[in-house]
Amino acid sequence: MNEFEFIQKHLSGLAGPQGLGLLDDAAQWSPPRGLEAIISTDTLVEGVHFPDKKFDAQLAQKLIRVNISDIIAKGADPIGYMLSLSLNEKVSEANIFAFCSGLAIDQQEYGLKLWGGDTTRTPGPNVLTITIFGTTPTGKMVARAGAQPGDLLCVSGYIGEAYLGLKTHLKQMDTGKFEAECAQWLAKYHVPQPAFELRHGIQQLASAALDISDGLVADAEHLAKASNVKLLIDIENIPVSDETRTWLRTQSDQNMAKVQLATGGDDYQILAAVNPNNFDKIRAISKDCGIQFTKIGRIEQGAGVLVLDKNGNEITVDQPGYTHF
Amino acid sequence: MNEFEFIQKHLSGLAGPQGLGLLDDAAQWSPPRGLEAIISTDTLVEGVHFPDKKFDAQLAQKLIRVNISDIIAKGADPIGYMLSLSLNEKVSEANIFAFCSGLAIDQQEYGLKLWGGDTTRTPGPNVLTITIFGTTPTGKMVARAGAQPGDLLCVSGYIGEAYLGLKTHLKQMDTGKFEAECAQWLAKYHVPQPAFELRHGIQQLASAALDISDGLVADAEHLAKASNVKLLIDIENIPVSDETRTWLRTQSDQNMAKVQLATGGDDYQILAAVNPNNFDKIRAISKDCGIQFTKIGRIEQGAGVLVLDKNGNEITVDQPGYTHF
Repeated sequence: MNEFEFIQKHLSGLAGPQGLGLLDDAAQWSPPRGLEAIISTDTLVEGVHFPDKKFDAQLAQKLIRVNISDIIAKGADPIGYMLSLSLNEKVSEANIFAFCSGLAIDQQEYGLKLWGGDTTRTPGPNVLTITIFGTTPTGKMVARAGAQPGDLLCVSGYIGEAYLGLKTHLKQMDTGKFEAECAQWLAKYHVPQPAFELRHGIQQLASAALDISDGLVADAEHLAKASNVKLLIDIENIPVSDETRTWLRTQSDQNMAKVQLATGGDDYQILAAVNPNNFDKIRAISKDCGIQFTKIGRIEQGAGVLVLDKNGNEITVDQPGYTHF
Repeated sequence: MNEFEFIQKHLSGLAGPQGLGLLDDAAQWSPPRGLEAIISTDTLVEGVHFPDKKFDAQLAQKLIRVNISDIIAKGADPIGYMLSLSLNEKVSEANIFAFCSGLAIDQQEYGLKLWGGDTTRTPGPNVLTITIFGTTPTGKMVARAGAQPGDLLCVSGYIGEAYLGLKTHLKQMDTGKFEAECAQWLAKYHVPQPAFELRHGIQQLASAALDISDGLVADAEHLAKASNVKLLIDIENIPVSDETRTWLRTQSDQNMAKVQLATGGDDYQILAAVNPNNFDKIRAISKDCGIQFTKIGRIEQGAGVLVLDKNGNEITVDQPGYTHF
C-alpha cells in the first residue's frame, strides 16, 4: 500500500470539508467572522508518553485528548486537526483500524474533524503529532499570563490518577491490594478525561489557565512565571478520587504521597486563576456539567510556587514535574 | 535543562506575536479580513528523509522548505509555523544552536515566524514536524483538483538534482567523474530551493498545482487523480540543470536515466496545470524572478499519467516515486 492508498483507506472517512478530501496537501480554512484561531501542538512518542508496542484506539484517544486539553484550557472550542503519523513496521493494519476507530470516537466526542497531515515510515518508535485548531471570540482566549494577586487557584477534576496508573503499568503498584483502583487509574493514564464541558466557563470567568501535563506543581510554575505572580498551593485541598484516597491511606508520609500526586503529571486537567467574585459562578457551571472544580490555593504578589501543608508550612518539592531534557 | 528553559534559550527569539512569547501552550491568530488560512504539515524522520546523525542548519532549512514548498504550490504566502521536535540524546547543544540558526535564516528568507509547538525526548531517530500557515485571498487557493483537459502541464526549476544528490550521499555516484556536479546535487538534496517567488503567479494563473516531493511522475498521478484527468509527460521536455545534463550524457539508456530523474523525488518544485492562454503570462513572471518554468506535457480527458519518449511512444514506469508503505 502506498501513502495515498493508506490515506484513502484509513483516514479519508475522518476528514472535514477543510481537509479537501485529503486529496490536497493542504487544508483551507476561514475562521468565522468575530472568531480567532487558537492553535496548539502536542506530540506523543512510543516508550516515552505511552507504552512500547501500544497502538490501538486508546492511543488515538490519548493523542486527541492531550491536544483537546490544551485547547479547552484556553477557553476555545476545538474544530479540526492536522495529524502526523511516523510509523514503524510493527504497526499492523489491524492496529491502524483500531487506532482510526479511536480517532472516530473522539472526533464525535469533541466535534472535531481531520483536516490533513503527513504519514511516514520510521525505523524507530512511533511518533504521533497533532496540531489542533479551536476558536474563541476574538480577544477572548484565556492566556497563562492573566493571573492577578488576590485570585484563587483552582483545578478541574482529580489529580494523580494518571500517575498511579503509570505506576500500575510499570508494576510499581501492589495490584493485589488495589485491584479495582488500579483499573481506574490505568484507564485515566491511557485515556485522559479533560474537562471539556468547562471550556466556556473558563473562557468567561478565569483570569488565566493552562492544562496540567507535566505535573500540577510544574505547571503552576509555568502559570506563575507567565503571570509574574506567586502561587500558594494547599496540599490538603488537592482533589483526589475515592480510589486515590484508598491508596493515600496506605502511605506513611501523607505530605510526601500528596506531593507525588501533585508532581506526577499526565492529569490533563485545567489549572486556573479565578477572581473570587467569579468563583461561585464557575463552580455552579462545573456542578451543572458534573465536573469537580476545586479551590486549591491562592495567588499573591511575588514569584514562584509554594506548596503548603495543613499547618501552612512550606513543603520542599525537589522535582515539580516531568521534564524531558 | 528542562523543556521550558530549552524553549526560552533556543526558540523564543524566533517567535512571532501569534506565539505569545512561547509562554503559552497555544498560538492565537486572526487571519486578516478577506484572507483565508492555508495549512500544511510535513514530517522529516532521521534516516528516512535525511541522513543519520545530521542535525544542523541545513536540516532546519530542509524542514522549513519542504513545508514552504506545500504552501507556495497552493499560491499562498507563508506566515508562521508550529514546530514539533522529538530529539534523542545524541543531539548536542551545538547541534541545537546550528539548527536554530538555520530556522532563523529561513524565517528571514520566507517571512515566517515561529508560533509554538512541542519539544520531547525520543529514544529513537529524531523526528521533526512542522505545521505551516499561509494565506491566500479567500477562495483563491490553487487546489490539486482544478486541472482541465487542454491545460498545459508545467514545472518550475529543474528535476532530478536532489535524486542525484541522494545517490551521491549514498556513494552510488562516481564522485571522481562528477566532482563539481556532486557538490551541486548534494546541496539541492540537503537544502531544497522551492520556487518561492512564483507563488503569486501560480495563484493567479494556474488551474491546479502541487509540489513534487515523492517524484514528478508520482505527484503527476496525484494531480491526475484529484482533477480526474489524464496527464501526458514528454520526457524530453523535463528540465534538467547543466550538471544533470553532464550525468545524462554518460548514461547508456537515455529514457531510463530520465525516468530515474522523474521518479526520484525530493525536488520540491511546483507541478502546475496552466491554461494555454495563461502560459505566456506565467512564463513572463517566472523570467522576471529568475525561475525556470517549463512546459513538460499536456492534459487530456481520461485518467492516469503517460510518460512519452521523443517519438511519442509510451515509456513504462514501474515505480512512479518514493513510497513509504
